[in-house]
Amino acid sequence: MTNKRVLLASHPTGWVSEANFRIEEAPLPKPGEGEVLVKNLWLSLDPYMRGRISTAKSYVKGVSVGEVMVGQTVGEVVESRHPKLKAGDKVLTQLGWQLYGVTKEVTKVEERGAPLSYYLGILGMPGMTAYFGLKEIGQPKPGETVVVSAASGAVGSVVGQLAKIAGCRAVGIAGGREKCDYVTRELGFDACVDYKAGSLADELKAACPKGIDVYFENVGGEMLDTILAHMNLFSRVIVCGMISQYNVTEPYGVKNLRFVLTNRIRMQGMIVFDWKDRYGEALAALAGHLAQKKLKYRESVVQGLENAPRGLIDLLQGKNFGKQLVKL
Amino acid sequence: MTNKRVLLASHPTGWVSEANFRIEEAPLPKPGEGEVLVKNLWLSLDPYMRGRISTAKSYVKGVSVGEVMVGQTVGEVVESRHPKLKAGDKVLTQLGWQLYGVTKEVTKVEERGAPLSYYLGILGMPGMTAYFGLKEIGQPKPGETVVVSAASGAVGSVVGQLAKIAGCRAVGIAGGREKCDYVTRELGFDACVDYKAGSLADELKAACPKGIDVYFENVGGEMLDTILAHMNLFSRVIVCGMISQYNVTEPYGVKNLRFVLTNRIRMQGMIVFDWKDRYGEALAALAGHLAQKKLKYRESVVQGLENAPRGLIDLLQGKNFGKQLVKL
Repeated sequence: MTNKRVLLASHPTGWVSEANFRIEEAPLPKPGEGEVLVKNLWLSLDPYMRGRISTAKSYVKGVSVGEVMVGQTVGEVVESRHPKLKAGDKVLTQLGWQLYGVTKEVTKVEERGAPLSYYLGILGMPGMTAYFGLKEIGQPKPGETVVVSAASGAVGSVVGQLAKIAGCRAVGIAGGREKCDYVTRELGFDACVDYKAGSLADELKAACPKGIDVYFENVGGEMLDTILAHMNLFSRVIVCGMISQYNVTEPYGVKNLRFVLTNRIRMQGMIVFDWKDRYGEALAALAGHLAQKKLKYRESVVQGLENAPRGLIDLLQGKNFGKQLVKL
Repeated sequence: MTNKRVLLASHPTGWVSEANFRIEEAPLPKPGEGEVLVKNLWLSLDPYMRGRISTAKSYVKGVSVGEVMVGQTVGEVVESRHPKLKAGDKVLTQLGWQLYGVTKEVTKVEERGAPLSYYLGILGMPGMTAYFGLKEIGQPKPGETVVVSAASGAVGSVVGQLAKIAGCRAVGIAGGREKCDYVTRELGFDACVDYKAGSLADELKAACPKGIDVYFENVGGEMLDTILAHMNLFSRVIVCGMISQYNVTEPYGVKNLRFVLTNRIRMQGMIVFDWKDRYGEALAALAGHLAQKKLKYRESVVQGLENAPRGLIDLLQGKNFGKQLVKL
């Protein structure tokens, strides 16, 4: 048995390409004292990865050329020298884009009757991001209008459904008719605006007749600019991601910040780690909604580690549908 | 006795000019039942006035051509048909740019041993704006760094002094050496950056060696863009004004909003009216600090109603020094 792993070959400027990555075989690592050898089963692909391979300053250390690409995985312990883990245990790891790895830093999956891959999605970081961002920063009240961009994605799809559960009008923004249909028909949002068709401003106005009280931002740039003009008095913007800005060399200049003043908008950045002490609360709530069929969930699966670069590129270009995963 | 008043002659595009105003004489009005006739003694000039004479959407109704310019005044009741007021009472009014006016809408000045003009400044809307914005949105903790733009102005000068009282490092931003000297030497700020000299980014870095925890924004535009890159993790931006943007026809595009995400910045718009139920609390606190000489205050006085347009233009161009008033 040998290991296989994907390394960063070069830092991208602008759009990421497959040439920014390199795949290699390596001997299977041996666990040291206190470590486990994990066989990764699923790898999560997420928009934040663009930031990690950038040379710009971010909130965590980036990946250097020659290092294994970062990423969360769910896997199975193959060999354990860890006091609390045994072979066969299912664990969440940060081992990144590789088939095997040794580490001390694992979280045992608290299985709650859901498929293992769900712990990378709706029961993992994306689900918790939606949960804490909407609840703690958005603070939606029944009857309010909640808008979320990248509405068919791993985070956005949960945000809108949680907004419905909270008694709000949920409006998504997504690219293309197919995604919008999924958002309204399958996920149950009240409306979804296709930003690729027609005028975003006009369609938003139609979809949000009482204006916008909470905006969950995954996109940034021009979309944020348009939305700001439709935000209500004392409304809230949860800044969770700015995927439109990760691949540009010159950031978009947002012109409508005067509405922050005139409408007393509260705009706040968030990262799910800020609530790490409360993950149990989110997991229980999300698993409960899933069990009661109040939350629907879809995955977009790429087969095999060698296709992970392509999967990330598709994700960054908005081609995915639901939570993007690599089956290893 | 006749009245004299300044009317809006035309809506400005770009910079305000004296041609946008027209002065006229008018008969002295007579108070109706429940009204008072007030002789205005002082008129306050404030940056928000630019928004009121604009044709763009704002948070309150604007001034139409041919109407008396809006503004707060402090005056004396000349004749009363109001059940709770008598001739000689000192009152705050919204009678605007005129020598006399009749109204039901007055607030009796709770005199606290300060000059009457102070109730338009440090003990009025600007002082309360500083008080509530810093306390409720900025939430400064001892040892943190608070930066305020337009630091020599009516609001900024109070913000920095309140930050010092709260145990923070207070750093101002102002235009010109003279204003900066006033801010540090007279008002007691720890540092002041002259945005007209040298590089704002470099000087901010030097003045804020531990970064910025609270930024009180009066200016907007490019200054906000520069500041965002220096804000700390979990820092707060109080968006109180955007004076740099009131006279431009094309708003500045802010490029650094990614820091809102990466540093989890909270940015929130405010208007002092949002705390109108708590004005008494602010008045007591500010008057107390004044009495203990912990707050210093300066006024910039224009003589005579006919010079009010010039005074407003100077204010919008940053030529004033301290609270801008017209002595009527």
